[in-house]
Amino acid sequence: MNYGVVFYILGWILKAESIFLLFPFIVGLIYGEGAAWSYLLTAGICLVAGVLLSLRKPKKGGLFLKEGFFVVGLGWTFMSVFGALPFVFSNDIPHFMDALFETASGLSTTGASILSDIEALSHASLFWRSFTHLLGGMGVFVFLSALLPMLGGNSVNLMKAESTGPSVDKLVPKLKDTAKILYAIYLAMGLIECIILLCLGLPVFDSLCYTFGTIGTGGFGIKNDGLFSLDPAVQWVIGIFMVLSGVNYSMYFLMLRRKFKQAFSLEEVRLYLAFIIVSVVIIGFNISHMYSGTEETIRHSFFQVSSLITSTGFSTTDFDRWPEFSKCVLILCMVMGACAGSTGGGIKMSRVLIMFKSVKKQFQMLIHPRAVSKIRIDGVVVDHDVVRSTNAYIVLFIIVYAVSTLLISLENVDFTTSFTSVLATLNNMGPGLNKVGPTANFGFMSDFSKLILTFDMLAGRLELFPMLLIIVPKSWRKSL
Amino acid sequence: MNYGVVFYILGWILKAESIFLLFPFIVGLIYGEGAAWSYLLTAGICLVAGVLLSLRKPKKGGLFLKEGFFVVGLGWTFMSVFGALPFVFSNDIPHFMDALFETASGLSTTGASILSDIEALSHASLFWRSFTHLLGGMGVFVFLSALLPMLGGNSVNLMKAESTGPSVDKLVPKLKDTAKILYAIYLAMGLIECIILLCLGLPVFDSLCYTFGTIGTGGFGIKNDGLFSLDPAVQWVIGIFMVLSGVNYSMYFLMLRRKFKQAFSLEEVRLYLAFIIVSVVIIGFNISHMYSGTEETIRHSFFQVSSLITSTGFSTTDFDRWPEFSKCVLILCMVMGACAGSTGGGIKMSRVLIMFKSVKKQFQMLIHPRAVSKIRIDGVVVDHDVVRSTNAYIVLFIIVYAVSTLLISLENVDFTTSFTSVLATLNNMGPGLNKVGPTANFGFMSDFSKLILTFDMLAGRLELFPMLLIIVPKSWRKSL
Repeated sequence: MNYGVVFYILGWILKAESIFLLFPFIVGLIYGEGAAWSYLLTAGICLVAGVLLSLRKPKKGGLFLKEGFFVVGLGWTFMSVFGALPFVFSNDIPHFMDALFETASGLSTTGASILSDIEALSHASLFWRSFTHLLGGMGVFVFLSALLPMLGGNSVNLMKAESTGPSVDKLVPKLKDTAKILYAIYLAMGLIECIILLCLGLPVFDSLCYTFGTIGTGGFGIKNDGLFSLDPAVQWVIGIFMVLSGVNYSMYFLMLRRKFKQAFSLEEVRLYLAFIIVSVVIIGFNISHMYSGTEETIRHSFFQVSSLITSTGFSTTDFDRWPEFSKCVLILCMVMGACAGSTGGGIKMSRVLIMFKSVKKQFQMLIHPRAVSKIRIDGVVVDHDVVRSTNAYIVLFIIVYAVSTLLISLENVDFTTSFTSVLATLNNMGPGLNKVGPTANFGFMSDFSKLILTFDMLAGRLELFPMLLIIVPKSWRKSL
Repeated sequence: MNYGVVFYILGWILKAESIFLLFPFIVGLIYGEGAAWSYLLTAGICLVAGVLLSLRKPKKGGLFLKEGFFVVGLGWTFMSVFGALPFVFSNDIPHFMDALFETASGLSTTGASILSDIEALSHASLFWRSFTHLLGGMGVFVFLSALLPMLGGNSVNLMKAESTGPSVDKLVPKLKDTAKILYAIYLAMGLIECIILLCLGLPVFDSLCYTFGTIGTGGFGIKNDGLFSLDPAVQWVIGIFMVLSGVNYSMYFLMLRRKFKQAFSLEEVRLYLAFIIVSVVIIGFNISHMYSGTEETIRHSFFQVSSLITSTGFSTTDFDRWPEFSKCVLILCMVMGACAGSTGGGIKMSRVLIMFKSVKKQFQMLIHPRAVSKIRIDGVVVDHDVVRSTNAYIVLFIIVYAVSTLLISLENVDFTTSFTSVLATLNNMGPGLNKVGPTANFGFMSDFSKLILTFDMLAGRLELFPMLLIIVPKSWRKSL
């Protein structure tokens, strides 16, 4: 491990975080809250630590794949730990493990909470909670790559480690420009949503927080009853923007380039939308007896599906009380996840596509043993390496899932709770079922379980490898 | 599809079944039961149908892989349907769908039951239930391959479709001899267990039935309270023989050849035994407060682990009342399964090994991108095709699992019940948790759910592809 470059990048991450922390500070000042000063204090701590770490610019600028993954895993851990401090300082979340859980949940855009009374928080802390979704959604390293030329062009390995899905294409030849384009689309989408929400009469603070939660596919709310009491029109808008946030950003890029035909023929996006429509219709029929009209039924069905498939985790109704069949469809949505190259979590549609196609290939080989078949997506042959790493990812996902569930079961809660609490965190969902259902929270769990789930949230956001790399002692060796 | 050869083999299967049905007929005669004649009647029906189907010996003896898989899938379905008839005729299980579920459960060595009062059955039917485990354990096609030269040496494709695990090695150059050796080991093991059980004072009928259930890793009992009230010594013996039945039969073959060193160094068997020991110890600590002494604790822990990891499904205690952590370990045992080339179900240890090693390889490639690494088991490089088909199997397993759970959730039972009822059938386990727990049964479910689970049992036993092939309309085409 090239520690010179690792420290240097970690330093920059902390310097960036110190700037991000100024936003909740300002919010706190506006609302005249004492909590504001906790954010300024933490910003100062981050700045000092960041400057110290990045004092020495590393001579060797080389950033190999392993260092990229390693530094991203470590960077997100640092951000979570430092980001948790103001919650503790301001006494909004006095217990550090709780604050760490909440921050990691925000950054990883999970949206799982340990709080039972959200409205007791200061505006500064509420804002910071939601703001971490904005940071975590597109990724902090992507942000740095867009702004800083510090890494001598090797930062593609940072973006590889941080972005979602089996493959990262540079949209344009220069990585820095790709990062800028991604962030521009991301922020433009947020701006549009925020303006619509303002037009619908939502206050500025609420509009901002919901927007961060939507486009980052996070899921932290600002009310104790979630989004239950929001105006139906607002629920529709947020639902639609969740779906849009789960689309592969390549599509928007193609649309900007006016390549509409290519944009609308992306297999992954088609599968994603088809899956949403089918789920909404099936659940709609299944729950129709529970709501008073067609609009209400479809709205709740659509909102919950779009929220869970994009791993946002907002809810407009207590879906834990839905029939088991609808709950199973939702669990399936949770597992599948949104598109690669979006801010959503889960296994990702493109992986599901590759999985399906590799099974189909296996069947074809059974029927026509001598036929040569290749897996194609959007007409392009999928590289063997991608198929292999997809399979490795699925297997690793199952392993992490099994181990986590096993450790959570030490809580001695029912199987549904332990099973869905891991699903909710590892897939960056937010709520699970039963004791961690949409109207409940993770507060009752032991510190040990919270630590496991915190790890799962970060591991889920970074697609397993970076976080697993930093807990393998071997990868800390200098000679590696 | 070459229907000539398909009909011919199906005919032979039914002829074989007509002979198997004479065993419960004789048992019924000994006990002077009227049910005996239902078995004779069904034997007659099978004989007539079998003779008619196999009247014309096909000219082209070719049996390609697809036909092998197809005929095995269809053959097991036929055996289940015909094997269900005597239950209906004798009025022991009057409803046909229930009888079909019970027969498929027996043949697939699942051991899941729809009966709440087992002891009400005639001895003939109790014997037939258990006897199907013996038939299904090693496989009926393997049996035919050992006896009949009917297929002109192409029957390797039948064995490939019927036997468990990622690869079938011919132990000796001639397939017919391999089949004979496998059956000899299988029956010898059964004989030894049966003699020990007799020596421990168990009646002949009981000894036979428990032996069939053990070596076939089935799980049908003959008492309403399962194995709860059996003598501890008997429980130990059955527990140990379950573990032995889950071992890859290659090990026994190597031992017969006096290649002890090679036999004891099989990685899969080592992993299997290590997993059992670790699970028994962990669960032992976790449940120690529930039982009165060390022997009782270890016995229950050992018995349940060996029963579930080999997918037998016998139980000596109501493990549904164990702490959640122990239940999670058991669920993990259920999913993992026993060794390839054994009679046990589940994903199989060798697949788990391949999965783990492919993840390890992925990590190594992350750390040393230029290093060439290959997956080895027992020092031999695993063929790329095996890795690919293992991955396809896992993915297919997940897909079948998800679809089945979704369909079962229409019952509107709790998630744990629908989740573990699919696990119990697809992995040929037997009992699940909650409403399908070790002291409950599947009787309450709708015919539709029973059909789905019947399919899952057969699909699980035949490792998915054969059963899926027969429900794909395309594979029925003549021109294929």
